[in-house]
Amino acid sequence: MKKPDEIEIIKIFQKKFVGKTKSQYNDDLEVLDVPKSKIYVKSDMLVQSTDVPNFMKPAEISRKSLVSCVSDFACKGVRPRFATIAIAIPEGFTKKMIDSLATGFQKASKEYGVKIIGGDTNQGKEIVIEVSMFGTNQGKIPSRGGAKKGDIIVTTGPFGYTSSALKIAYEKHRTGAKFAKKSMGFVKNPKPRLEFGLQAAKYFTSSMDSSDGLAICLHEMSSQSKKKFVIFGIPTNPDVVEFAAKNKIDVKDLVFCGGEEYEIVFTVSPKDLHKIRQIGEKLGVPLFYIGFVTSGRNVTFNENNRERILERCGWVHLESSKL
Amino acid sequence: MKKPDEIEIIKIFQKKFVGKTKSQYNDDLEVLDVPKSKIYVKSDMLVQSTDVPNFMKPAEISRKSLVSCVSDFACKGVRPRFATIAIAIPEGFTKKMIDSLATGFQKASKEYGVKIIGGDTNQGKEIVIEVSMFGTNQGKIPSRGGAKKGDIIVTTGPFGYTSSALKIAYEKHRTGAKFAKKSMGFVKNPKPRLEFGLQAAKYFTSSMDSSDGLAICLHEMSSQSKKKFVIFGIPTNPDVVEFAAKNKIDVKDLVFCGGEEYEIVFTVSPKDLHKIRQIGEKLGVPLFYIGFVTSGRNVTFNENNRERILERCGWVHLESSKL
Repeated sequence: MKKPDEIEIIKIFQKKFVGKTKSQYNDDLEVLDVPKSKIYVKSDMLVQSTDVPNFMKPAEISRKSLVSCVSDFACKGVRPRFATIAIAIPEGFTKKMIDSLATGFQKASKEYGVKIIGGDTNQGKEIVIEVSMFGTNQGKIPSRGGAKKGDIIVTTGPFGYTSSALKIAYEKHRTGAKFAKKSMGFVKNPKPRLEFGLQAAKYFTSSMDSSDGLAICLHEMSSQSKKKFVIFGIPTNPDVVEFAAKNKIDVKDLVFCGGEEYEIVFTVSPKDLHKIRQIGEKLGVPLFYIGFVTSGRNVTFNENNRERILERCGWVHLESSKL
Repeated sequence: MKKPDEIEIIKIFQKKFVGKTKSQYNDDLEVLDVPKSKIYVKSDMLVQSTDVPNFMKPAEISRKSLVSCVSDFACKGVRPRFATIAIAIPEGFTKKMIDSLATGFQKASKEYGVKIIGGDTNQGKEIVIEVSMFGTNQGKIPSRGGAKKGDIIVTTGPFGYTSSALKIAYEKHRTGAKFAKKSMGFVKNPKPRLEFGLQAAKYFTSSMDSSDGLAICLHEMSSQSKKKFVIFGIPTNPDVVEFAAKNKIDVKDLVFCGGEEYEIVFTVSPKDLHKIRQIGEKLGVPLFYIGFVTSGRNVTFNENNRERILERCGWVHLESSKL
């Protein structure tokens, strides 16, 4: 199989990004042609050895690297418009695999209307994809720290499939083929709630992308808002509960301690809840009301009338336990 | 030695970037607060195994990753203002090494006035640093393809030290300690000509950053300008010529086939040459007049009244010969 060099790789990528003129790709700088507006930026790096399960194909990896950046824009209600891609590719990558990577970028670009304006191609020991994404917004956007006492805590969902998929793939937990396929689909083909975020963000008092895990997300928002978050709902589906029961796992671990769900966690005033619900129904986005905001600090989980601290579990790169 | 995790690493980085408020770092998106203007973007990835010689320290590596992006702005006369940094760090990195990386970013940020507005921290098999840099400019900027018949081809310089340094480090070429130290300094501590570019770019008819190597650069500008570039000057210093002679290397190989010099190659109308010279003298930037633009195609080198094609030599990632 022929192994393309940097120049051929760039050509393969360029061909996929329809509508690009040659001159835009072939200079030292790219230009963002935006109207008078605030520009929002997100930089996100995907590393093969730590971020990519072995059951993902090149096109799924590249699509996900772009789509995970979209998720950060979705939760803030900012439309992403442009992206640059920097990539490191290991030796021995065939033209077919490069083509597959390019297809994934192209797919994500079309799905979410993000124009790829340039990038950088390199050789490395493993696949590393860095996406920098740019979006515009003229108004105010919700922060992580704006939750008010009395607000309702809501999340799009469901949660729990991604951690189930990893347990099935790596720890050989028992399940049927249908659930295995469904849960792996959440890992391979995540779909951030961009349209929901764009329409609903104006009602959010605070918001955050859930991709580091739901518990981390709730703790971060509680901490930045200087409020207590009281949780009583588990935002998941019956088949996840069933999988947990069958494998003697606490379903809360699957739902709160996972990650890469790319859902929007937000707080909203009770008076705006019906507007949020309308938008969710119109777009077919499942919403879960999981708790409320009160004075105090920390995040608690309420079950059977007992309130306990919700552990700040989830994924932290380079954590000692993993080294 | 203590090994910091992702959260500690982010804290070490944040502490170094003076003037940042907590809230700017702790949300899903970063914002570019710029006046009504065009925004220019550059994404550049540095990979340890292919881009970093073994004699470089962490602070030099991180400084260089940022500074190499500045070079793309310098050649276009666009002031770089903001940067995001995404980094992959291998297992076993100590707090001291992380601190050194952060120091290098901080140094580059201060030297060139680029504000670091955010980033992403990851674990990987080797150091990978991706910098996305943003700059603003209201006017027209020179392209790679604007060279006109009769223009003079000029470059800042000197060239040849970086390839000499690699030959000394990896191929054990003979040289004195003084030249070895000097040439390695060009690799470890590159200094793009930002101020020169900002002041002089309005006179450039075409321009390009030389970091992929001088020959590649000249071929690219000739090709995009659809003009012939006739070269007769070798932009280097006597000690490089001496090193080449002592080691029986063609000095043209060192000068034209190297890379990572971060100089500005440009074409200029003869009537503007004195203005360019004035700016160079004022800033202490050495300028080399190396050729002229004429009708036709390709890049030739003229020596002893014989004109030959200048080989398009230099570094291409993943090139077959390297696999």
